[in-house]
Amino acid sequence: MERVIRFGVSLEPDLLERFDTLIEERGYANRSEAIRDLIRKELVEADIEYGRGMVIGTLTIVYDHEAGDVTHKLLHLQHSRHSAVRSTMHIHLDEHNCLEVLVVEGDVEDVRKMAESLRALKGVKYGELSLFSPSV
Amino acid sequence: MERVIRFGVSLEPDLLERFDTLIEERGYANRSEAIRDLIRKELVEADIEYGRGMVIGTLTIVYDHEAGDVTHKLLHLQHSRHSAVRSTMHIHLDEHNCLEVLVVEGDVEDVRKMAESLRALKGVKYGELSLFSPSV
Amino acid sequence: MERVIRFGVSLEPDLLERFDTLIEERGYANRSEAIRDLIRKELVEADIEYGRGMVIGTLTIVYDHEAGDVTHKLLHLQHSRHSAVRSTMHIHLDEHNCLEVLVVEGDVEDVRKMAESLRALKGVKYGELSLFSPSV
Amino acid sequence: MERVIRFGVSLEPDLLERFDTLIEERGYANRSEAIRDLIRKELVEADIEYGRGMVIGTLTIVYDHEAGDVTHKLLHLQHSRHSAVRSTMHIHLDEHNCLEVLVVEGDVEDVRKMAESLRALKGVKYGELSLFSPSV
Repeated sequence: MERVIRFGVSLEPDLLERFDTLIEERGYANRSEAIRDLIRKELVEADIEYGRGMVIGTLTIVYDHEAGDVTHKLLHLQHSRHSAVRSTMHIHLDEHNCLEVLVVEGDVEDVRKMAESLRALKGVKYGELSLFSPSV
Repeated sequence: MERVIRFGVSLEPDLLERFDTLIEERGYANRSEAIRDLIRKELVEADIEYGRGMVIGTLTIVYDHEAGDVTHKLLHLQHSRHSAVRSTMHIHLDEHNCLEVLVVEGDVEDVRKMAESLRALKGVKYGELSLFSPSV
Repeated sequence: MERVIRFGVSLEPDLLERFDTLIEERGYANRSEAIRDLIRKELVEADIEYGRGMVIGTLTIVYDHEAGDVTHKLLHLQHSRHSAVRSTMHIHLDEHNCLEVLVVEGDVEDVRKMAESLRALKGVKYGELSLFSPSV
Repeated sequence: MERVIRFGVSLEPDLLERFDTLIEERGYANRSEAIRDLIRKELVEADIEYGRGMVIGTLTIVYDHEAGDVTHKLLHLQHSRHSAVRSTMHIHLDEHNCLEVLVVEGDVEDVRKMAESLRALKGVKYGELSLFSPSV
């Protein structure tokens, strides 16, 4: 069990009431849990915004397996110098389309560049990158 | 002076330390102020996401005053039924370009539709909509 | 080989020049490829914004495997009525933290609700949801 | 009348059909107009993401005029070295709340820092920053 520090927070009654409703809807056990998550989210956003330190990115791409050479390029990119593909997951969406999720690691710039290279490949129809801090 | 409610929050020491650093950088007077803002931001995002109630939107558009009929269309839109332009601000960016900020009010769908109509006008080069709750 | 339709687009020379630079940086083979991706991205965003039809979501969560009961809850959620977890991927970030990517399917509201429930679990430190259309 | 360059774009029939429906809904006069806007949006996002050059930001804040010293701080910030407040607009939301839109100019880092300082002020309840390129 990790040690925690307890401190007091002051809020306007109506704001607190709306917050309690929201976190109950979302299923939080208590206010501390919910506030902890808000703080982590803010810290991650600040890290990303200022490009501080290493990030982990989840890149989701959708591609037509008959049109492109994504699999080949992906293997090639795993050997790139600055970033590393930690893991991938494949899903067959339909007859033509594959969904692939790549977990990539590196500094913000490198991870973004890698995502853009993959998105630009012929056959890749969609790509979205989510970034967060490993120290979250 | 508005009445406030005080309650306790428990956080892991390293998370709290990183949060304290962030809010000091940003100039917050204390943790309550910062947490209050995080909570308000979350409530606003939830309201927008689920399209609950009325919203206020700030629509920033950039247009070429020689190419389009934005001013005319804008005046026309002020008389639309579901939304209302509360106020506008004009800035002359350069010889050709104007920046215009419109504060619009209404339900999420109406405000988004209005933003899209303006963005689609010939001469409008860029448009971005920020939404928030009036009850923030 | 899929049939394509060819049509003309008119652009200002300086805008076209900047676009050509950007797409070359990103590694696009030609303008059609790049414009196709911009159009797909816009269609997906419109679908999500208006909650039209089914969506696929990639939910990335980071959790402390010693603190929460995420795995149990996740299994439980797979049997929920409105959404379905298509696949998951696990990565051991460090001694304490796990990264889990879930591919979930359903209507926008259901997928968001599921993401919120998981984010709210004790032990889950971070969660981000990317949404896109299966018809991308 | 500005000179334009015309070039050909190839798209899959079903993608083009969905795009035509979307741009008709939004009120675009033709495909070139819509594609031009998509390209500008992408260029602006790339500029912002990589912090290239100067940006213009629209900062929308909501504050309680009885609680904070925002007006004073705002005047103070106009004299800051790296950024400049080009213009502001005030709106009385209700008895307590003011909405203020500031158009700020500078490099990405400076504009973000200014936005954070204002958001952190006691009395400021909400703040959202939209960034774009003046060369849009």
